[in-house]
Amino acid sequence: MSAPRIDRDDLWLLLELMAAVGGTAEGGCTRLAYSEEEDQAHVLLASWAAESGCTSGRDEAGNLYLFRAADEGNTEAPLLIGSHLDTVPSGGRYDGAYGVIAGLAVLRALNSSQTRTARPVVVAAFRNEEGARFAPATMGSGYFAGTIDLATVLSATDRRGVKIEELLEQGESSVRPGKPYCYLEAHIEQGPVLVTEGVPIGVVSGVFAQISAEVAVTGREGHAGTTPMGVRRDALVGASRIIASVRDIAGKKSAGEEEAVATVGEVSVSPGSRNAIPGRVIFTLDIRAPRLQAVDTLYRTITARATEIALEENLKAESRVLWSDAETGFAPVCVDAVSAAARELSVPSRPISSGAGHDAVNLAQICPAGMLFIPCRNGISHSPDEAITPFDAFTGASVLLSAALILAR
Amino acid sequence: MSAPRIDRDDLWLLLELMAAVGGTAEGGCTRLAYSEEEDQAHVLLASWAAESGCTSGRDEAGNLYLFRAADEGNTEAPLLIGSHLDTVPSGGRYDGAYGVIAGLAVLRALNSSQTRTARPVVVAAFRNEEGARFAPATMGSGYFAGTIDLATVLSATDRRGVKIEELLEQGESSVRPGKPYCYLEAHIEQGPVLVTEGVPIGVVSGVFAQISAEVAVTGREGHAGTTPMGVRRDALVGASRIIASVRDIAGKKSAGEEEAVATVGEVSVSPGSRNAIPGRVIFTLDIRAPRLQAVDTLYRTITARATEIALEENLKAESRVLWSDAETGFAPVCVDAVSAAARELSVPSRPISSGAGHDAVNLAQICPAGMLFIPCRNGISHSPDEAITPFDAFTGASVLLSAALILAR
Repeated sequence: MSAPRIDRDDLWLLLELMAAVGGTAEGGCTRLAYSEEEDQAHVLLASWAAESGCTSGRDEAGNLYLFRAADEGNTEAPLLIGSHLDTVPSGGRYDGAYGVIAGLAVLRALNSSQTRTARPVVVAAFRNEEGARFAPATMGSGYFAGTIDLATVLSATDRRGVKIEELLEQGESSVRPGKPYCYLEAHIEQGPVLVTEGVPIGVVSGVFAQISAEVAVTGREGHAGTTPMGVRRDALVGASRIIASVRDIAGKKSAGEEEAVATVGEVSVSPGSRNAIPGRVIFTLDIRAPRLQAVDTLYRTITARATEIALEENLKAESRVLWSDAETGFAPVCVDAVSAAARELSVPSRPISSGAGHDAVNLAQICPAGMLFIPCRNGISHSPDEAITPFDAFTGASVLLSAALILAR
Repeated sequence: MSAPRIDRDDLWLLLELMAAVGGTAEGGCTRLAYSEEEDQAHVLLASWAAESGCTSGRDEAGNLYLFRAADEGNTEAPLLIGSHLDTVPSGGRYDGAYGVIAGLAVLRALNSSQTRTARPVVVAAFRNEEGARFAPATMGSGYFAGTIDLATVLSATDRRGVKIEELLEQGESSVRPGKPYCYLEAHIEQGPVLVTEGVPIGVVSGVFAQISAEVAVTGREGHAGTTPMGVRRDALVGASRIIASVRDIAGKKSAGEEEAVATVGEVSVSPGSRNAIPGRVIFTLDIRAPRLQAVDTLYRTITARATEIALEENLKAESRVLWSDAETGFAPVCVDAVSAAARELSVPSRPISSGAGHDAVNLAQICPAGMLFIPCRNGISHSPDEAITPFDAFTGASVLLSAALILAR
């Protein structure tokens, strides 16, 4: 019996092998939720668990769990480590897969070193984190945490009319761990902070609050050739000024909003003809910040500016919030464990807030949860260009292992 | 034999009856080119011609001609009066139809007054002026003028894969007038100038020059939640600033460009997801002015500003001209005839340039051509809200009649 250590080469090999499942010509992955490719990824993961001396099982929503027993039987609530294996279409190799495989590497390290833990350690591969094929996102972990019920999962339908129910193998016996003691998730940052600062570990303090809104600007359609500039009420000109102002407002750093971001990602122009003055433009507005209060303030500032611009342009601007989520603050017990693990290994780390949602947000509803981030090249994610270094992968899994030992020992 | 006069009530009744063909619940018309509705409109027009003592016939492209013989046999080149009966989807009652029916009203006035003319007078209903179902626009008059050949017309295909060839009745004998002496077209203005100034007749001096261009702005995709504002290269923010500048530049009145207009009508955002920073935006740019030189100057000013904005935003902006058309100047003989006709009837008129293309642009390739505009309510066209007054309709047809007499007598 020796001190448990992550096998760096083994970890990288597993990541490479997993990347081949649904691998694309561009070097990325397409493993949509509940697709054959995601199923293959789950089968592969279960086979690796068996190789490593662990059992595995699936729940009714198709989430896969790898089990490592506790030293004294499984009477204690388990430490759960998880993430997901689905990707967006033409996505990357590491978003999700890294966290699951780092979890498996932890199990392998514990097993090969015959390390005893007081709590069972379970690794979860949650289904449909991305929400790219079936809405909503983080569905599998939502089912596990009880924020979404089984009927909703089974009846979710993709664009071709296929229901998840039709895609799950019938009659399998359902297996799932009990309520976790704690939940840990390792993930690529999906942003540029760590890679830019050269810090290998982000200790995630929580997940941003978010408002998803829509702005509709109404003017008057007209013929592009026959309507003098002076009498136009061009909805796109007004919308463009508002979109530029969204960036200007969110880009200004004010106290408590340093990390706030605001994005217009989709624009729909009516009638959308090259020789017609747009009469109506609808665009999305996504605002995120570490605290909901800052998000609300930004939303109010932006919509007030939109109203001003609409007045100046003789247009009407109407904004509505589609949904909003308060921030998730991760539990001190988990945040401290990640932080202490990095210190223990003499790995530089920094606190960081996550601007993206993760399975950990659902788990935080039922147990203390925490996350660690590793750097990704150029901060790029959801793209075949998503990349990490073998050393960063190893460092992240090593910190995950140490944090797991702090919590499970 | 009396002086020929337009029958005001008859003209309005014909306009109402024609509006019922393809009439929509909103009070407009849908008579797409080569549809059953447009065919019905042609059949109706031919029956009205027969009622009025005129013969009619169709050419190989389906254009319909109504013939009124000259006093001394048809040895002279005819005066041609024309426009179109097709509409855009959910279009208005008067765009096109007004000019054709005003032409028929001229024939009726000449016949009922037994007025003798030295030249035959022919009224044309050209097919597919709008280009809404089959490209290109002004197809029928282009065929007549020889700017587009029959094979191109017959093989033109709509979105459902239907060819014009399949829609034309086979085996009909082809009839068409000879090369016209002159061409006249009456049309609603499709803009707000006449209605705003309260001037009943626009003497059209020509049709604007035009550049149709496309601007592509490239930045870098990113996650809307995890990419700090300071490191973004948001293609939509840059595109929005450029679109606002298009209006600002075209809105500034400089010498020789008073009537210039520039419009962005279509925008395509990639990847077009509410939680992704746009990496690429492509938008259309339509610039028109009475002279091509002014259009060129505007295009260069706009693209130079686009390049500046792209530099400021760390983006790339690429512009390309899809096509450009020089201005069409109408022939003095026709412009003067319209102007003199208005004076003769003591009707106020003003010179006006057309920002929209018309069948007259094709006819100007083969003979002297001219147009007159009548006011339309709020300057609205291509909409069920398109409207004219019975008095303006009557005034326009009366000026058309007088101009026809000046040219054909």
